[in-house]
Amino acid sequence: MPKLRVHNTISFDGFAAGPRQREDAPFGDGFDGVQQRMLATMADRVKGRPNADVDFLERSERNIGATIMGRNMFGPQRGPWEDESWTGWWGPEPPFHHDVFVLTRHLRPAVRMEGGTTFHFTDEPIEKVLELAFAAADGQDVRVAGGPSTVQQYMRAGLVDEVHLTVVPVMVGAGERLLDNLGEAAHSYQVAELVGTPASVHAQLTRV
Amino acid sequence: MPKLRVHNTISFDGFAAGPRQREDAPFGDGFDGVQQRMLATMADRVKGRPNADVDFLERSERNIGATIMGRNMFGPQRGPWEDESWTGWWGPEPPFHHDVFVLTRHLRPAVRMEGGTTFHFTDEPIEKVLELAFAAADGQDVRVAGGPSTVQQYMRAGLVDEVHLTVVPVMVGAGERLLDNLGEAAHSYQVAELVGTPASVHAQLTRV
Repeated sequence: MPKLRVHNTISFDGFAAGPRQREDAPFGDGFDGVQQRMLATMADRVKGRPNADVDFLERSERNIGATIMGRNMFGPQRGPWEDESWTGWWGPEPPFHHDVFVLTRHLRPAVRMEGGTTFHFTDEPIEKVLELAFAAADGQDVRVAGGPSTVQQYMRAGLVDEVHLTVVPVMVGAGERLLDNLGEAAHSYQVAELVGTPASVHAQLTRV
Repeated sequence: MPKLRVHNTISFDGFAAGPRQREDAPFGDGFDGVQQRMLATMADRVKGRPNADVDFLERSERNIGATIMGRNMFGPQRGPWEDESWTGWWGPEPPFHHDVFVLTRHLRPAVRMEGGTTFHFTDEPIEKVLELAFAAADGQDVRVAGGPSTVQQYMRAGLVDEVHLTVVPVMVGAGERLLDNLGEAAHSYQVAELVGTPASVHAQLTRV
């Protein structure tokens, strides 16, 4: 059965983004330390330096056939679209290479990018969007990419099968926590795997 | 120089206690999984089964000459003391064996327990209480034991030298987080050490 998966990097104090996210600071303020760790792992991969962090990064991309994200992850604009020329943070050829479903009340036509990524904008309920994503993934898994409130919606609804977290040894202090606003749903997940590397801790949560 | 140290066990999602702490649930609701891990480590120590978690537990008790705690850690009563016969959660011989300073606006006479523990109740500013504790510790370190809001007060004031955290692979979902309400002060701490054991992750934060 295809799964709904989360793969995210968080600070030691649990933040997936800092406060005041905006165009010149996509992850908000105070998040530089975390981003540096993420970039270091990407650089290790590009340079062919294998390590446990690169393994986890590659695992996050394997067998993903569609992506779901919140509108705030897609871009810095809030409210009605003032500028439909915005096509995401990722340049002309985004790294998804499949259908990406952007949850938003503010609809706009789908955007087909180079390399196989198409952004779909949808105001359907999250369960329905997941159905669409599974259909698009055609047997592969679906990843809910973020931001935190979107991940939490899917976790609270009990729809997430696996949450892979890379915890980096950096303090952020404020912003949006990934594992927050879960309430009782938190007890539906167990930490099935916890592995320390010299640079971080990798955890895998699965449903109880 | 003697240090002010924090040693605490938190859930994977960062909680040091669950909601609704009360006499028959000192750590609140939903915290059983974390407590079981703490008790398992204590049992390993008593039974002489050395492991990394026992090492960290023993480190937390070494060279501590005085303890500071919030009133809510001392007991379940809130507001003015209705029952001064309450002498803490720890029975007639508490495991501190030194002076313990309880921060509270509701003063009462010091309570001398068996085994060298004396509970002092003080409404002095936290800096002054720390001075008193360092004097009582007579060259040893001081531990700020909890709860989370007391630890956070000392961290925000930049008075904590080391924070040792045992992160156990359990989700709690609600309650009081330890590393919360720190704001900018979070950036004054770095994760100097991060060690995974089969059962948990141990981190040491130090001041930048």
